[in-house]
Parts: sequence; structure tokens; C-alpha cells
Amino acid sequence: MKVLMKSLFTLLLISNVAMAADPLPSWMDTAPKKAIIAFVDRVAKEGSPDFVPVAERIATFDNDGTLWAEQPMYFQGLFAIDRVRVLAPQHPEWKDKEPFASILRGNLPVAFAGGERSIMELVMATHAGMSTEEFEQIVRDWIATARHPKTKKAYTEMVYKPMLELLGYLRASGFKTFVVSGGGVEFMRPWIEKVYGIPPEQVIGSSIKTKFDLQHGKPAIIRLPELNIIDDKEGKPLAINHHIGRRPIAAFGNSDGDLQMLQWTTTGKGARLALIVHHTDDGREWAYDRNSMVGRLDRALDEAKARNWTIVDMKNDWKTIFPFEMN
Amino acid sequence: MKVLMKSLFTLLLISNVAMAADPLPSWMDTAPKKAIIAFVDRVAKEGSPDFVPVAERIATFDNDGTLWAEQPMYFQGLFAIDRVRVLAPQHPEWKDKEPFASILRGNLPVAFAGGERSIMELVMATHAGMSTEEFEQIVRDWIATARHPKTKKAYTEMVYKPMLELLGYLRASGFKTFVVSGGGVEFMRPWIEKVYGIPPEQVIGSSIKTKFDLQHGKPAIIRLPELNIIDDKEGKPLAINHHIGRRPIAAFGNSDGDLQMLQWTTTGKGARLALIVHHTDDGREWAYDRNSMVGRLDRALDEAKARNWTIVDMKNDWKTIFPFEMN
Repeated sequence: MKVLMKSLFTLLLISNVAMAADPLPSWMDTAPKKAIIAFVDRVAKEGSPDFVPVAERIATFDNDGTLWAEQPMYFQGLFAIDRVRVLAPQHPEWKDKEPFASILRGNLPVAFAGGERSIMELVMATHAGMSTEEFEQIVRDWIATARHPKTKKAYTEMVYKPMLELLGYLRASGFKTFVVSGGGVEFMRPWIEKVYGIPPEQVIGSSIKTKFDLQHGKPAIIRLPELNIIDDKEGKPLAINHHIGRRPIAAFGNSDGDLQMLQWTTTGKGARLALIVHHTDDGREWAYDRNSMVGRLDRALDEAKARNWTIVDMKNDWKTIFPFEMN
Repeated sequence: MKVLMKSLFTLLLISNVAMAADPLPSWMDTAPKKAIIAFVDRVAKEGSPDFVPVAERIATFDNDGTLWAEQPMYFQGLFAIDRVRVLAPQHPEWKDKEPFASILRGNLPVAFAGGERSIMELVMATHAGMSTEEFEQIVRDWIATARHPKTKKAYTEMVYKPMLELLGYLRASGFKTFVVSGGGVEFMRPWIEKVYGIPPEQVIGSSIKTKFDLQHGKPAIIRLPELNIIDDKEGKPLAINHHIGRRPIAAFGNSDGDLQMLQWTTTGKGARLALIVHHTDDGREWAYDRNSMVGRLDRALDEAKARNWTIVDMKNDWKTIFPFEMN
């Protein structure tokens, strides 16, 4: 009996150690997981010929479609639509003005028929004209209460469990993790620190212009209805250079908007990791790539294959997608 | 004898402990040092009513005149002048074109008689038209070899020892330290990490525009002759908001260009520290303020007095100014 107990105890210990030793438990033991672990071993192990000092272990992550979901449309778009509904009573003129009129009637295809111009009108009407502190509170309130139209989950639950594990694994291996997203930087910062463990100064995104306003001796930063930076495509390596001043050694994306960031990352000297999340699971998530309006993955998929970048097949490489799944 | 040895040993130990206990040995025991230590105690001691979590302990430092010297002119200006001399053989047309012609003849007052336009011509001719990696190498080579016209020291030795101690003290107290300077961000990053212990992603500065250039499959970021951000005056709180996304709780400057950063910092909730380095020592350094072309300190000096910000009188509050001083 005593021997049996001891054996069981030993077994339990071993299995605990084995679990603790797996930094990526939601990942299948397939090629992407192996590529990630092999890369981290190469750059983080003292004595490795590809060893990289901690200060240079920079990893950049796209957000929409890479860290959290982006269907049926970018969540920031859903936020803007919700804001139009909230603000409508103060804007009686919106009843006859697109894209607001169609949004208020729930007809999104018509609302967005005007293309980029409609989207800009929507963004500026909902994201500008207040102080940065007021906007932060608006985002905090929305993210705490809004629910995803399909899953009815909070948006902060619509994040990919394997990617949260990856963020933690990289940080435990001495990496500094950054978000580099086409999304608005001040839309992301109010919740990203809590959800991803990434502080605001490591969040890079698109932005609108601001002005410093000193009224009654109390300064405020006011958000203006004018674009500043679009952190997408070529904009990503430029924003990385401007903000971080160092080329990443690992980058993670899911769409053509990430292509240049991945090119910039992989063409530096030494060991590099480029990974693309390919949305292939229309059961647990969504399946889309070359023909999608949101998160279109076409050129970057070809280049990933040609250059042997790591491609995650969500359906087959991830055991769990969302933290709320029961498995 | 044994007792004497033991006493000496004890004395040595005590004096070591006392030295280790003074985080700011180059500061006189006057009001600024007391204000700094009192502030750090208020925000960093568990249980203090003004306790601030580590993630929110953001401290921002101006560079020119605050961390390193700025006379007889901003060191980046001296770099640009040196570059004109190096590049002159490739630009025979400069012999007849201002501001280059006067710079090459050593007549700086005439060179800069054209004001802002002359300065822009000079900056763009010397800072743009190459890749970011080429520019980084140019700065590295210059900073390694150039010498200050008066002291003949390397520019990286023209830094203020009390401020280096302050950076270290704040970091040891859980602060994240940032440079927020009107100087060019890519002029500062190549040497700041080694000299101040601040990584490139915590350096904010002025910048010119860049473009992503993909030639023969090898991407580069090319510096364009067009201004992007001027990180001075109102631009400082805006750049802090854009880059850090969090209001500092401590800020350090020396000129009117830092006024808005100090206003932004001190008007947040909770304990705040604003400090101005006042150049009062024409023996060990330089003495200048309201009428100086470089680092003009006028409005900010009035506001510092009115708001009880901490003012460092360099002559009387700093035991040592430069690390190379013998004392």
C-alpha cells in the first residue's frame, strides 16, 4: 500500500512537471508548436549560436484575427455602430445622412456602400471631439457591457487561448511583447493590459490627430477628426521603427495587412520567426482567407508558403480556440 | 590589534552601507534632493496613501539641457555641421548655396541668419536620403569620435552625473524612465541605451517621415526629407499620449519646451513631481535662462515658481555636474 501510494505520488509529480513543462497546452503537437519552441530555444538559451540578448527579444503581434476574433466585422466597427445608436438622439440630422441613416435602420450593406468615405465619416463621428480621458471611459464602458452578436460573449473573451499562452511563453523567455494593429491605439489600450498583459506603451495602432488644450489651467488632450497614422501594410514596419526603434525577431499576423511587418522581421540577421494564423475552422470559429472582406489573407499566404513561414491551421493545430470552450 | 582591525572593519562596513543608502550622492542635501526622495517614498512605499502601482510609475525626461549639455548649441546641430563638412566633396554646389556655404567657411551666424528655413535645409541635407540602418551607423561613428568644442570630451561624457543617479534611483524604485526630447529620435537611440540605460522603445523624439522600400526582396526603411513630428512644447504631451498612453507621474525638463509636459504631468490625480534644471553654473557648466537662444527658460521658470515645482540650481544643488570632474 505504502509503495503504491508512493508510486502514485511520483506519477502525479511527474505529470505535474510534464504539464508545467508544456508552455503551450492548447496547441496540438504539430509543426507550428514545434517551430515556436525550437525558435525560442535557439534565441533564448545561453550558449546557443543564435542567442539574442534579452533587450533585443522583440515580438510584435497583430490584434484583429491574430489575438482576438474579427468576424462578422472588426470589433471596433461594431463599437462605432453601437456609438451611433447611443449618440443618435443628439444628432437628429443623422436620420437623413449616410452612413448614419442606414446604420440606424440596421441596414449595414447600404451604410457601407460608400466605401472608405463612409467608414471615415463613421469613425470621426464616433471617435473624435472628446478628450482622450473621455474616450477611454467610453471604451471601458463598452468593452465591459457589449456582447458579440453570434457568441453573446464579451469581446474580451473572444481572444485566442493558444495566443495568450504564446504571449506568456515568450515573456517568460525574456521577450518584450508588442501589439502592432491597424485598430485604433486608444480603442485598444483601455482593455489590452488586463487581457493580454501588455502595457499601453507596448501597444501600437492607428490614430487620429490630437491637440493640447489648456483651459482654466487644466490641460486636456482633445481628439480631432483627422487621420494621423494608419498602422497597416507598409505602415506597420514604419510604426515599429518609429515606436520601438528596433527590428522584431518574431512577428505574428493573419492577413495581408501584416505582410510587410513579417517581411521586415524575417529579413534581419540571425534567427527569426514569422507566423500566420490561418482561419480554417468554421465550426469553432470562422473559415476565411483570400476572398474575405475582413482579414483578407492572399498575398501573405503565398509568401508564407514560398518563404517557409509558420502557418497555423486553426482547425488542426489548436486544441482550444476560445477560453470559454469546454474541453 | 585584533580589536582595532575589527573596529576598522566595522567602520568600513558602516560607511559602505551609508553610501549605498544614499541614492543621489552627487546631489547636495538641499531642497531638490529632499523633494525627490520624499516623492519616491510617497508613491513607491507599500501602504502609503499616495502609493502608485509599478505599471503606472512613468517618468519622462527631456534630453538637451536636462540629461546632457546643450551649449554652445544643441549637439545634434554640431553633428549636422560635421556632416556638411564630410559630405561637401559630394556637393560642389554647396559652395554657393546657403546655409552650406557659410558653414563650410565656418561662419555660423551667417549660416543661420535664414532662421528656421536654414535649419530645415541643414537637417534634411544631413539626416535624410539614407536607410534608417545607414543613419544609425553614421550617428554611431560620430558619437564615438566627435569631441565637444570647449571641453574636448566625447558628447556621451557631457551628461549630468546627478541625473544619471536620478534615472537609476527611479528605476530601482520601480519607475519606467522615458526620454521625451525635441531632438531627433533616430539621433538619440544609437547611444542612449548605453549611456542612460534607456532602451530605444522608451525614447521619444522629433522625427522625419519614412517610407518602406522593398528592393530585390530586401526591405529597408528610407528617411525622407519631410518633417513628421516636432516633439517640443505642446508636442510633448501629445507624443507622450501617443507613445506611452499613460500620463507620467514625474517629469524633468530645463526649458520652455518642457512646460506643457510638466503641466500635463502635474495636473493628473495623486502625487506628482515636476523638476526643472536651472543652468546657473558658469564655472563648471554654463549659466543661461531667459535670454538664451538654446534652452530658453522663461515662462516655465515663472510657472515653476508659481506652482512650487522643484527647481535645481545647478551651482548650489549639485556637488558634481559631469562624470569627468575630479571631486
